Amino acid sequence: MHYASAIISSMKPTPKYRSDCPINYALETFGDKWSLLIIRDLMFQGKNNYSEFLKAEEKISTNILASRLEKLERAGLITKSIDPNNNAKKVYLLSEKGIDLLPMLLEMMAWSAHYDEHTGCPVEFSNQLKEDKQSLITQLKRQLIES
Amino acid sequence: MHYASAIISSMKPTPKYRSDCPINYALETFGDKWSLLIIRDLMFQGKNNYSEFLKAEEKISTNILASRLEKLERAGLITKSIDPNNNAKKVYLLSEKGIDLLPMLLEMMAWSAHYDEHTGCPVEFSNQLKEDKQSLITQLKRQLIES
Repeated sequence: MHYASAIISSMKPTPKYRSDCPINYALETFGDKWSLLIIRDLMFQGKNNYSEFLKAEEKISTNILASRLEKLERAGLITKSIDPNNNAKKVYLLSEKGIDLLPMLLEMMAWSAHYDEHTGCPVEFSNQLKEDKQSLITQLKRQLIES
Repeated sequence: MHYASAIISSMKPTPKYRSDCPINYALETFGDKWSLLIIRDLMFQGKNNYSEFLKAEEKISTNILASRLEKLERAGLITKSIDPNNNAKKVYLLSEKGIDLLPMLLEMMAWSAHYDEHTGCPVEFSNQLKEDKQSLITQLKRQLIES
């Protein structure tokens, strides 16, 4: 290859994703068995630090947790800061981009609640989801933004 | 262990999932980088067989495709039958459980369309999603059930 064509070729943007399909973008951002469990803990369970995430019932391992937190931070879904009360402790928060996953997660929960007979989705929650999803989204979003 | 307690213990249902959380159920059913691309192909692109799925832009490999089709069939999201015009060919279709992923997939697409500047989500589709999601769901669902 000529030097000039080598330079031109190196200037071409490397395709970052497998395709520009929006479903593919979502899957490349959080499409694995663990990432959305961390988002769930931040969104619905008020957890915000490493040791709290580790306690999740699904038994995430320390190395998977660390790698997923890093990936979610890089993708702009969560932010990391230092706990003002303890310099050694990191605090994680959902960004706006992360909070905006709420409607998708609620649809996911509604689907599972419908199809999984052992679902742990509380009935009242499941009913509110069916009857007035928009109010539920507004209410949860407000709580997340204010927290 | 006494024989009786061994029997009783063997009668306990083996926990099938990591937890009974509805988000976890969804992730254990289709939480990987490929499964929802197959659902997408069935749902939005009218594909219904192995060689069509293989042509997806994301370049799924034959062994991953085969394993995901099997998993999705086992989970009851798709059905497999023999092509009436070609006995050697299998035809895949979304089940009702699979079709019911539509609202979740639309939310996923809306999120990606908003956050991925290179999104391939057509503007008209993205607008309809914002302005009248419910009609879009009804219309797409009807098409899927009739097909």
